[in-house]
Amino acid sequence: MTIYDISEKAGVSIATVSRVLNGSAKVSPATRKKVLDVIDACGYAPNAFARGLGLRSLRTIGILCADSSDLFLAKAVYYLEQTLQEHGYESLLCCTGYHQEVRRSYMDLILSKKVDSIILVGSNFIGTTGEENQYIREASAQVPIMLLNASYDYPNVYSILCDDYTSMYEAAAAMLNAGITEILYLYNSLSYSGRRKLDGFTAAVKERGIPDYERLIHRYPGDPQQMSAVADFVAAAAEQSPAFHGVIASEDPLAIGAMKYAAQRGIRVPEDLSVIGYNNSMLADCCTPELTSVDNRLKTQTHQLVQTLLRVLDGEEMPKQSVFSGKLIRRGSTIF
Amino acid sequence: MTIYDISEKAGVSIATVSRVLNGSAKVSPATRKKVLDVIDACGYAPNAFARGLGLRSLRTIGILCADSSDLFLAKAVYYLEQTLQEHGYESLLCCTGYHQEVRRSYMDLILSKKVDSIILVGSNFIGTTGEENQYIREASAQVPIMLLNASYDYPNVYSILCDDYTSMYEAAAAMLNAGITEILYLYNSLSYSGRRKLDGFTAAVKERGIPDYERLIHRYPGDPQQMSAVADFVAAAAEQSPAFHGVIASEDPLAIGAMKYAAQRGIRVPEDLSVIGYNNSMLADCCTPELTSVDNRLKTQTHQLVQTLLRVLDGEEMPKQSVFSGKLIRRGSTIF
Repeated sequence: MTIYDISEKAGVSIATVSRVLNGSAKVSPATRKKVLDVIDACGYAPNAFARGLGLRSLRTIGILCADSSDLFLAKAVYYLEQTLQEHGYESLLCCTGYHQEVRRSYMDLILSKKVDSIILVGSNFIGTTGEENQYIREASAQVPIMLLNASYDYPNVYSILCDDYTSMYEAAAAMLNAGITEILYLYNSLSYSGRRKLDGFTAAVKERGIPDYERLIHRYPGDPQQMSAVADFVAAAAEQSPAFHGVIASEDPLAIGAMKYAAQRGIRVPEDLSVIGYNNSMLADCCTPELTSVDNRLKTQTHQLVQTLLRVLDGEEMPKQSVFSGKLIRRGSTIF
Repeated sequence: MTIYDISEKAGVSIATVSRVLNGSAKVSPATRKKVLDVIDACGYAPNAFARGLGLRSLRTIGILCADSSDLFLAKAVYYLEQTLQEHGYESLLCCTGYHQEVRRSYMDLILSKKVDSIILVGSNFIGTTGEENQYIREASAQVPIMLLNASYDYPNVYSILCDDYTSMYEAAAAMLNAGITEILYLYNSLSYSGRRKLDGFTAAVKERGIPDYERLIHRYPGDPQQMSAVADFVAAAAEQSPAFHGVIASEDPLAIGAMKYAAQRGIRVPEDLSVIGYNNSMLADCCTPELTSVDNRLKTQTHQLVQTLLRVLDGEEMPKQSVFSGKLIRRGSTIF
């Protein structure tokens, strides 16, 4: 029994059911009664229903993220919590790791805490099969699910994301336009976001007819934040690959690992090697030269997510997907 | 009505009350009855009491940290959650920011979620006045409070920390022993931990009779993670201060800011300037040369904390304070 079933049985829109559940004044008494009767008949009381009966919402939002020590995820969580707090909401965060089973269990835990909504931070929460995403569909029957930097098309699920495909395409195009055509592409994850980046890069080099580009695409299997290990990996990759004069990485730490490799070999950055990272994290400021990196507008994304969430809780119809464009922030690691 | 009141009225130790509340088999039926009678008479049912009556613990731990985007705090939270998970505990994290009012409110929220214990991550949770710490004393009446990298002497509060005083003293001594006596000390916080570091540094330079050392101690007022702003601050500080050939910072980003200042002025690191950071964060690996930094044994601390917590929940008597020693990790930013 979900709010979709209620909507169907009562013959009203999901938005109307949502308004009733949230106690919105915008619903006529007759419609309100119709919806409550259906809920009554089914003997079902979702968390949101308690609010519909006039009980105070706890004004608490659940946040799930895989790993709070990942720079990108940590920053996203920070912005979300700040913005929610400004709007009078507290948040409960669970760091779930990357195992499906643990995630399900955390989803149950956070739902049991009577949150008004759940935010999933990072594209790694979305699997490639329907079965992998079942826990999200089930949860969406109870509360609105907000996805940050991921996309999943399902009722009561709202996606806010950066267009990683175009952002990476444009980063690659900028390098190609500067005359650098042999580009090592370094990535570590094939999450939704990871695949989009890889596809964007591939489209750009294909379009230019760059030969043999596949031989310069390398997946780093370890923890990207171990930058010395990344440097060793790039050194090994360089031995098996054609020569390259550019590096584009799917995350800043991978790019910094490539810069470490260059420093060890006496390869000058940016004169001999241009390097582009992704996420525009604080690491980009730490290295010498500073790292050119794609800013995926994280702060803008988090604000949009909270705005969407507040309106959804208020019973408004909101866009299911909000997409932002990233921006290349040029620093000393590129000649262009 | 707290477990201390119960302990007093029942004429048994706090550990015994705790054992009863946790349903431990190590308590005699007579003692158990005595304790339950007192609780009964007072009409008081703390969360832990429910467990004592045989209800299953939810095996959930609350974690409060000020800011999940701070590298040190984020890493601490990550280690804690991993270790708790290995022992079958889930965790709920709240990022409270630095305002006292918000913290109290988060403490109430997390207590209402029926957690078995609350972990406070970082020394900034401990105030300097009794009033500031009242919310901790109140919470400790309901569940054990664990402090990571902080210390507070109160019943049912357990402190696990690095000896920041000695660690910083030894870092300063290493620099002084290398013949560098004019040392700029950069810090940004006077939390418990921040004060201990400053005191350790001061003790080392005083002991050597270094003149005028106070003129080289500077408090950076902004966000340390804005490293370019730190560089500007160091440049301004350098103009008003005596010459210096070493920098010791209370956090890695401040040290990297100092290295940025050096790079801008053509001052060579480590030949003209030795730099030491603190926390041995991933930033230490990002800069060129890599940063010598004090490792405060965060992983060891978090493991000790979880071990202590599990035993406390089991009704065992555990040390109120566990102190570890930090270790200077030498890299390219120092001549010694």
